[in-house]
Amino acid sequence: MTSGMDPVETHLAEVLATIRPLRPARLALQAAEGGVLAEPATAAGSLPPFDNSSMDGYAVHASDVAAATADAPVTLPVADQIPAGDSRTLTVAPGTCARIMTGAPMPGGADAVVPVEWTSGGTAQVQFYQSVTKDYAIRRRGDDVAAGSEVLPAGTRLGPPQIALLAATGHASALARAAPRVAVIGTGTELSEPGSPLPRGGIWDSNSYMLAAAVRQAGGVAARHRIDDEPGTVLAMIERQSAAADLLITSGGVSMGGEHDVVKAALSGHAAMTFRKVAMQPGMPQGVGVVGAQRTPILTLPGNPVSTYVSFCLFGLPALDALLGLPPRRLPRARAALTAPVRSPEGKRSYLRGRLDAAAGTVTPLTGQGSHQLGALAMANVLIVVPEPVVSMEAGEAADVMSLP
Amino acid sequence: MTSGMDPVETHLAEVLATIRPLRPARLALQAAEGGVLAEPATAAGSLPPFDNSSMDGYAVHASDVAAATADAPVTLPVADQIPAGDSRTLTVAPGTCARIMTGAPMPGGADAVVPVEWTSGGTAQVQFYQSVTKDYAIRRRGDDVAAGSEVLPAGTRLGPPQIALLAATGHASALARAAPRVAVIGTGTELSEPGSPLPRGGIWDSNSYMLAAAVRQAGGVAARHRIDDEPGTVLAMIERQSAAADLLITSGGVSMGGEHDVVKAALSGHAAMTFRKVAMQPGMPQGVGVVGAQRTPILTLPGNPVSTYVSFCLFGLPALDALLGLPPRRLPRARAALTAPVRSPEGKRSYLRGRLDAAAGTVTPLTGQGSHQLGALAMANVLIVVPEPVVSMEAGEAADVMSLP
Repeated sequence: MTSGMDPVETHLAEVLATIRPLRPARLALQAAEGGVLAEPATAAGSLPPFDNSSMDGYAVHASDVAAATADAPVTLPVADQIPAGDSRTLTVAPGTCARIMTGAPMPGGADAVVPVEWTSGGTAQVQFYQSVTKDYAIRRRGDDVAAGSEVLPAGTRLGPPQIALLAATGHASALARAAPRVAVIGTGTELSEPGSPLPRGGIWDSNSYMLAAAVRQAGGVAARHRIDDEPGTVLAMIERQSAAADLLITSGGVSMGGEHDVVKAALSGHAAMTFRKVAMQPGMPQGVGVVGAQRTPILTLPGNPVSTYVSFCLFGLPALDALLGLPPRRLPRARAALTAPVRSPEGKRSYLRGRLDAAAGTVTPLTGQGSHQLGALAMANVLIVVPEPVVSMEAGEAADVMSLP
Repeated sequence: MTSGMDPVETHLAEVLATIRPLRPARLALQAAEGGVLAEPATAAGSLPPFDNSSMDGYAVHASDVAAATADAPVTLPVADQIPAGDSRTLTVAPGTCARIMTGAPMPGGADAVVPVEWTSGGTAQVQFYQSVTKDYAIRRRGDDVAAGSEVLPAGTRLGPPQIALLAATGHASALARAAPRVAVIGTGTELSEPGSPLPRGGIWDSNSYMLAAAVRQAGGVAARHRIDDEPGTVLAMIERQSAAADLLITSGGVSMGGEHDVVKAALSGHAAMTFRKVAMQPGMPQGVGVVGAQRTPILTLPGNPVSTYVSFCLFGLPALDALLGLPPRRLPRARAALTAPVRSPEGKRSYLRGRLDAAAGTVTPLTGQGSHQLGALAMANVLIVVPEPVVSMEAGEAADVMSLP
């Protein structure tokens, strides 16, 4: 480690220690999608709620069709038709049967279902070509979920099957931590809105768009803001957003330039903040802390676009998980052979932009590794991770790669 | 293959052949997130648009500080301060320097930047402790993207870095295929809204919630509908939604029960539809075709919840990709050792619910493999794929597993 710098893990640990899981709320099912259950979900009733047929066929007394074969079919009168959702209380008398559809409630008396494929399919009377064992094609009440049982433990992430299970057990809502609301604040007097004319010395803002898209891709709710390098403006924006968001992420204004580092200047002496140099490239200058009356967590990321995005992947994604009360996600890792040499500054962990060919097991370092060079980032599917002590790697060497989200 | 059934691949091929890529639209950047670029994006100007400093430091004539060392510093007057976004036309005279911030435009005359860390950091005058080579810490105009060059090819999926590159090259919008709009239609007279009282013979609807969540998780825009088993109602809903959505997905009403198979009944003889038995379990009865004046594609999935979800994973996700003009995604596959035996019907490919322990390389088949058993699906992270000819596998055997999204 170069002196004065902290390892990536130190900063990540402080990010995770700073963030408290969100307060759970009772959320309608759709609002709970992608959120995390904050209490165990239990089934008020049984699932299925009643014995029902697993096939389209005929509800019978199994003993009535015990002798049925293709050569010597058994014929029974069809006493009724039972569609799914039928609310009548029905009984099948011995020596009769009822046409029954998948999911329809089993009538009293009947103890098996003969699939329609094994019958003549008649409506007034029907020939059975095959016998069935007792209980055949019947789903018993509660054979999916028993009444009163826990269907999902606290901490479950609510994807489509989990939402479905909540719905199927009668839950219209869930006590859950919802997708975090993130205020993204890009700073820089030099920034212009894309599409507007570019003044001399100006560049088009890309970081606020990138961070907002990255938050949404990760399942969060993003609001995008952009402000000039004026400490009062920055502080006012941060304080305002600290009341509206679960997490603030700024880009820019945290490097070495003294009074021009507007985020650092605005927050110094004001909030519970740590600014540090992290032994990584890109993304050395990082800050984390809490702001406002609600002690809202804030990550202050560096402003070079590639630095911003790599920082979001390393610290922002775990922060979103921590807000949901989940362990921090780890982007998928692999090993791949370099197709070209790479270099890395001694004492820093490099995250170089690369293109992984998973089938070939190779990774190609892209041209344009400057921390401002978005072109290469937009072509990358992985970051090549070069450890702190390593200053160069040769073509053919196996490198660690980390998938981009 | 059991007679009368088609392989999974046959149905998938027909799904993909049915779907035409969406008509591209000009979308604001946020609306284009997750979409796919429909034409190459080019850079109107250079990126960066002007030579600028890559560090906080001092813009100098490199020759003026050529002799600088820690023991014998060179001292120069500081003629100016240049923040990022400075719009003035400045020149640094020989024998002077200018304080300059990261991203600020290089002044005329200066041909290098000395990082502030190698100086005394003064504002009126400054001592240089180290020399720099010509061009040091300067980012040249266009060194990320040359004016007029293609920055992203047609067919690029617009994730955060790609959105950022569009923004940075001045695009406020993009001609792209946007996230598809999917109408999800659950059918079944037996279905009640979760949270409402359950009538006799009724169950709470879960499929429409599950499919809508799955579409949104996959990046689509979902609208959720639920209707009774009445062919006129079903047909009216399908026709109405065919004008509003890019894809329709129904669940239920496509199995073997004749007049009770309401989706099949509503669409038979009416639209360009194929209904078939697919040699898979769960999910045998499948349909695909086009409906309405705009020939909107429709997938009719079976109604058992696990069948619905497995069908969505196998046919719905590729359909969403095809709407964007992308090759169909393949859920990640792996091999893992079974911790318990499994069984599978001969002639069908089984997709059994399992829990993969990737670190151990094992997969545990879950209890409750009925196609109505949501409990096991909600605990699963993979589907265990058992090929058509195989009827059983023993504990310890290596099985193919497919990650759930």
